Amino acid sequence: MYKKEPLLAHIHDPNDLSRLSYSELSQLADEIRDVIISTVSHTGGHLASNLGVVELTIALHRVFDSPKDKIVWDVGHQCYTHKLLTGRYGEFSGLRQNGGISGFPKRSESPHDAFNTGHASTSISAALGLLAGESLKGGDGKAVAVIGDGALTGGLAFEALSHAGQLGLPLVVILNDNKMSISPNVGGLSKYLSRLSMKSRYQRIRRWIDRSVKGFPLIGASFYDIMVRMKRGVKALFYTDNFFVDLGFEYVGPIEGHHIQRLEQVLEDVKKLGKPVVVHVITQKGKGYQFAESDPSSYHGVSPFSVDDGLFERREAPVFTEAFGSAMVRKARADERVVAITAAMEKGTGLAPFRTEFPARFYDVGIAEEHAVSFAAGLAAQGLRPVVAVYSTFIQRSVDQVIHDVALQNLPVTFALDRSGFVGDDGETHQGLFDIALFRSVPNMTILAPAGAAELDLMLDWGTGGQGPAAIRYPKAPFPENTEAFFCPLEQGRGVFIKRKNSPVCLAFTGSLYSQVIEAESILNAEGLSADLYNLRFLKPLDEEYLLSVLNRYKTVFFIEEGMKQGGIGEYAAELALRMGASASIRILGVSDNFAGLGSRKQLLELCGLDAAGIAGSVLAACRKEVFSYKKAVLG
Amino acid sequence: MYKKEPLLAHIHDPNDLSRLSYSELSQLADEIRDVIISTVSHTGGHLASNLGVVELTIALHRVFDSPKDKIVWDVGHQCYTHKLLTGRYGEFSGLRQNGGISGFPKRSESPHDAFNTGHASTSISAALGLLAGESLKGGDGKAVAVIGDGALTGGLAFEALSHAGQLGLPLVVILNDNKMSISPNVGGLSKYLSRLSMKSRYQRIRRWIDRSVKGFPLIGASFYDIMVRMKRGVKALFYTDNFFVDLGFEYVGPIEGHHIQRLEQVLEDVKKLGKPVVVHVITQKGKGYQFAESDPSSYHGVSPFSVDDGLFERREAPVFTEAFGSAMVRKARADERVVAITAAMEKGTGLAPFRTEFPARFYDVGIAEEHAVSFAAGLAAQGLRPVVAVYSTFIQRSVDQVIHDVALQNLPVTFALDRSGFVGDDGETHQGLFDIALFRSVPNMTILAPAGAAELDLMLDWGTGGQGPAAIRYPKAPFPENTEAFFCPLEQGRGVFIKRKNSPVCLAFTGSLYSQVIEAESILNAEGLSADLYNLRFLKPLDEEYLLSVLNRYKTVFFIEEGMKQGGIGEYAAELALRMGASASIRILGVSDNFAGLGSRKQLLELCGLDAAGIAGSVLAACRKEVFSYKKAVLG
Repeated sequence: MYKKEPLLAHIHDPNDLSRLSYSELSQLADEIRDVIISTVSHTGGHLASNLGVVELTIALHRVFDSPKDKIVWDVGHQCYTHKLLTGRYGEFSGLRQNGGISGFPKRSESPHDAFNTGHASTSISAALGLLAGESLKGGDGKAVAVIGDGALTGGLAFEALSHAGQLGLPLVVILNDNKMSISPNVGGLSKYLSRLSMKSRYQRIRRWIDRSVKGFPLIGASFYDIMVRMKRGVKALFYTDNFFVDLGFEYVGPIEGHHIQRLEQVLEDVKKLGKPVVVHVITQKGKGYQFAESDPSSYHGVSPFSVDDGLFERREAPVFTEAFGSAMVRKARADERVVAITAAMEKGTGLAPFRTEFPARFYDVGIAEEHAVSFAAGLAAQGLRPVVAVYSTFIQRSVDQVIHDVALQNLPVTFALDRSGFVGDDGETHQGLFDIALFRSVPNMTILAPAGAAELDLMLDWGTGGQGPAAIRYPKAPFPENTEAFFCPLEQGRGVFIKRKNSPVCLAFTGSLYSQVIEAESILNAEGLSADLYNLRFLKPLDEEYLLSVLNRYKTVFFIEEGMKQGGIGEYAAELALRMGASASIRILGVSDNFAGLGSRKQLLELCGLDAAGIAGSVLAACRKEVFSYKKAVLG
Repeated sequence: MYKKEPLLAHIHDPNDLSRLSYSELSQLADEIRDVIISTVSHTGGHLASNLGVVELTIALHRVFDSPKDKIVWDVGHQCYTHKLLTGRYGEFSGLRQNGGISGFPKRSESPHDAFNTGHASTSISAALGLLAGESLKGGDGKAVAVIGDGALTGGLAFEALSHAGQLGLPLVVILNDNKMSISPNVGGLSKYLSRLSMKSRYQRIRRWIDRSVKGFPLIGASFYDIMVRMKRGVKALFYTDNFFVDLGFEYVGPIEGHHIQRLEQVLEDVKKLGKPVVVHVITQKGKGYQFAESDPSSYHGVSPFSVDDGLFERREAPVFTEAFGSAMVRKARADERVVAITAAMEKGTGLAPFRTEFPARFYDVGIAEEHAVSFAAGLAAQGLRPVVAVYSTFIQRSVDQVIHDVALQNLPVTFALDRSGFVGDDGETHQGLFDIALFRSVPNMTILAPAGAAELDLMLDWGTGGQGPAAIRYPKAPFPENTEAFFCPLEQGRGVFIKRKNSPVCLAFTGSLYSQVIEAESILNAEGLSADLYNLRFLKPLDEEYLLSVLNRYKTVFFIEEGMKQGGIGEYAAELALRMGASASIRILGVSDNFAGLGSRKQLLELCGLDAAGIAGSVLAACRKEVFSYKKAVLG
C-alpha cells in the first residue's frame, strides 16, 4: 500500500535499524511521517503527538534492545512510529479500526509493546515495576518510560519518581517536553551543558565535593551543611538542578529531540549510567506537517482530514459536549457561584467558551483528576457550585476523592461525565462504561443521564442547585432534536415517559440510548408490537414507590443501560422488583462482563446488542418470536 | 473531669489564646499533652502524631483567625489539640466513641473544622479550593494546609502543589516533618537561615539579581541563562532550594516545631507574604510521652494503654492481619515469584515478618496507593506474583489503576484488602464497605472473602496462581477457629456449606460475617428454626448454574454481606434469581445507602442489623414471626 517507502518497508524489527546510516535514518523519518499523516488522514487518530517523536523513537530503538529492554509509552498516543518499526507497517492501514491494530500499545499485539497504556502518567510506575521484576529475576534488561511534560503533572508520575529515586534502579525516564515547557532552561547553554554534564566537568566537580565532604566528618554540622549547599549550588550552575535531582535522579538535558545522532549519543551514555536518570528531550508536536505544527492542539486527536489543506471532514451534528459547553455559559451568567474545572481538557469537554467569558471562574488543573475533585470540594465548602468536567473513563482516577472529599461531606460538586458509555476508536482504555457501577454505591450521590440537550440543561441546574454531589453522564455522540419530554421538570428519582400508550412492554433506558430506543420502537411497530418508552433520568436515587408503579403497569420491562450490567441499574431494578413484588418481569440489556474493544460507537453498540436492531431483537425474542426469523426479515 | 487543667479549661475559643504569655502557653501545652495522653489511654486513638503538634497548633491558632482563616489538617490524625482549643475540651472524653466527637476534623462538629479529612494527601487541594473560593467571593480569609512528610509522597499532594504554584494564591502549606525527613538540611545553619531568609539577606540578593537580569534584556539567552542559574545558585546557598521552589512556592525552614514563639514569628511573616509558601517545621512524634517518643510508630494509632508503663491492654485473639502475614511468608518460601507491596502500612498489613525474611522482595512505596498498583502491574508483567496489601478504604485511591493497568491486561496481581467491612473507631472515612461494589463491575476480577485463616491461605494460593487479578477481602477482626469447611479446595465461583441439613432457609454470607452467622443460627435453633449456612467464598465470578442449584433447594435464601447493598452481591443474586427463575425468595441484608459512622465494629454491625441478633431477627421476621415479640423474648 505504501509503495513510496523503500526504507520503511524493509524494517521488520528494530534490529534492522542498525544497518542504516544517519542520512538513511533521516529519510526513514520522512517516510514514517508520510505514512502517519496519510494513514491518520483516513482513519483519524493521534497526529501531532506522533509526529513529534519520530526521531526519538528511532533513536530509542537503535540504542535499546527491545523486547529485552522494555519501552513504556505514557498515554500511548505517541506509539505509531514504534509500531511501524516493530513489524506492524503492513497492518498500519487498519489503525484504530475494528479488527485492526490499536492506536495504543497492546501486549497482545507485539512483544515489543511492553505494557498497555491509554490513561496518562502510568509509564514510570509500570517501567519501574518491569525493571524491578527483571532485577529480581537476575536479568539485565533495561526499562525506559517515555512521558510527556503534560502527563508529568499527574500525581501517579510523581509517586513513581519518588519511589524510583528511593529504589535506585537504573530506570530511564524520557521527559518528552513538547513546548508545554515545565522548565525555563531552554537555550544554547543548556544544550551545551547537557552534553557536558554527562562527561567531565560536572562529574569532576561533584567528585571533588563528595571527597571534600567525606574528608571532614568531624568538622560539624554547620560545615557539612555549607558543603551540601555548595554542592547544590555547583549543580545549579553546571548541571540543571531541579526536583528530579531532589528525588534521587540524575538529570540530562534539555536535548534537541529531532536530532537522531545527538539523541543516540546521550542515550548511549545514559544506558551505562547504572542510576535512575531523567533525559529531558525537547520535541515539537506536529513536526513535519505544517498545519499540525502551527496548531498542535487542534491536530492532537483528529478525525479524518484532507492532507493537502488540513481541513477536517464535516461532522453531521453538534454533540453533547457542545450542549454542555453552552449550558455552562448560561448557568454562569445566571449564577455567579458556578465555576468550572477541567483536567487538561478545556477543548475536549467543551469549556472553551466558558473560559473566554469567565476566565476567573475557570480552572485547568492539568492532568490531575484527583486534585480536580478535592479542589472542587474545597470550592464547594465555600458555597460555590463547582462543575468538574471530565471524561467518564478519567473519573475512575478520582473515585476516592468523590467518596471521601465530596460525598462524605455532601458537598454540591457536579461531575459532568462526558464520553460516558461506548467511546469509538480509542478502544478499551477509553470506554466510559463503569461510572454507574462505581458511583451507585456511594451515599449522597445523584446520578443523572440526559437524553437530550434540554434535559442536560435541567440536570445541570439540578446539580448546581446545592443538594449535594451529582454526576451527569452523557455520551460522545450527537444529541437528538429536543422533544417535549426533555423539558419536563425533574422530579427526584423519577423518569419521564417519552411514549406511553399502555403497551404490554416498556423500555426503560439510560438517556444516551434515546435514539436507539426510538428506532427500536419503530422496528417493533413494523412487527406489530408496541412498546412504551421510559427515560430513567435518575440512575440514583430512585423513587422506589414510583418505579414500582411503573413496573406494575407492564408485562415486561426492559432496563436498557449503556454501562456494565454488573453493578448497573438493571440489577437494582431486579432487586427492587423482587423485594417489592412487582408484577412485571424484568429484563436487562447492558454490557456483559468483558472489556469493550476497538470500533466506532455504532459498532460497539451493535456488538453488545444495544443498537436499535439489537434492542428490538431482544424484545421480540422475549415476546416469544423467533429471533432468527426476525433478523432474516428485518435485517436481511 | 480534667480538674488539673486551669488554663485549658478557660480556652473556649482560639481568641482566648491571645491573652496568654509565652510561659502560660508553655503550661497550656503541658496541660494539653496530659489531657491527650490520659484520654487516649482510655479511648484509644492517635497518640504520637497528636503529641507532636501541640505547639504548632497553638501557634497557628494565635496567628491565624479561625474560622475566618481555614486550617485543613491532612489525614486529620493530629487534630486533637485543635479540637481542645476550639471549644471541645468538655466533650473530649467522648473521643472516638459512638455518639462522641470524632478523632478527625468534621465540619458538622465545629465551624473551626474547615474540611473533613481522614485519608492522606488531600489537605493542599482542599485548602487551595477554600482559598480560591474565598478569593472569588472577594474575601481576605487565609488558608493553611498542615501536611506531614509522609502524606507528601501521595501524588494528590503533588498535583495540588503544582496547581497552587500556578495559581499563585497565598496558600500556606505547613510541612510537618517529624523525622521521616524529606530533607537532609536539618542543623544549626538551617535554623539560622530560615529566620534570615525571610528578612534581609536573601531578599536583598534576590532583588539585586532580578534587577540585573531585567536590566540586560538584550544581552541574549546565554547570559540570561547564566543569571537564572546564578539566582538558583544563590538561592541554594542562602535559601533552601528545592522542588517547592521549582513548583512556584516560597520556602521557609526548617524551623524547630516545639518553640511557640519562633513558630509565631515565622507564621506572622508568612501570613503577610502574599504568595504560596511552604513552611518546613520539624516536630517530634510522641513529644512529651517517653514511650511514644522512643517508639513513635507503635504509639501512632493505639488501643487503650496504661499511662504509667505504656503497656497496651491485651488483645483477645489474633486477627486476620496476622493470618495474612504468616501466610505470605509461607507463600514466599514456596514460590519465589511472590513479592509484597505496601503503601506505608508494613505493620498495619502484617507484612513485617515478610520484610524481615524477604527484604529484596518487599516494597514499601510510601503513601502512594496508585503507584503501588501500577508498579505491581509492571512486576506481574515480568511473570512475578505481586501481592498488594492495602486497607479496603485506601484501595479506593487505585480504582483506575486496578481497571486500567491490572484488569485490562489480566495481570495476576493479588489485592489483600485488609479492614474490609466495618472498621471500628476511626469512623466514616475508614469504613471498608465499598470494595465489593467498586470491583464487581470490573472484568477479569476475582473477588474472594475468606471466613477464616485456612481459607485465606487457600485464597492467597488462588490469587498468586496466575489466572488474573484477585481481591481478597477480610475484616479488622479476630479470625475464628478453623473448621473443616475452611480447608475445602476452592472451586471457581462456588461457595461451601458450613452447615447443611435441608432447612427451609439458607444464609449465604460473605466470609467476614462467619461468626455472626454461626451465632445467629444458634438463636434460630433456640426458636425452633434451623438454617443452612453457605459461605459464598467467591463474590465474583459466580458459578451461576451452581448458585441456581443452591437457590432451588430453599424456600428463602438470605444474602448477608458486609458491604453496601447498592451494587453488592445480593443485587446480583436477585438479578440472577429473576433471570434464571429460581424458586427461592431472596432477601438481602447489607449496608443501606448511608455512610457508616463512629463506633466499634460490633456496634456498627448491630446498627445495620448484621450482628447475630439482627440476622436472626430478620430471618424470624421473614418467617412470619413477630420481630417485636422475638426481640422481647431473646434480647430482653
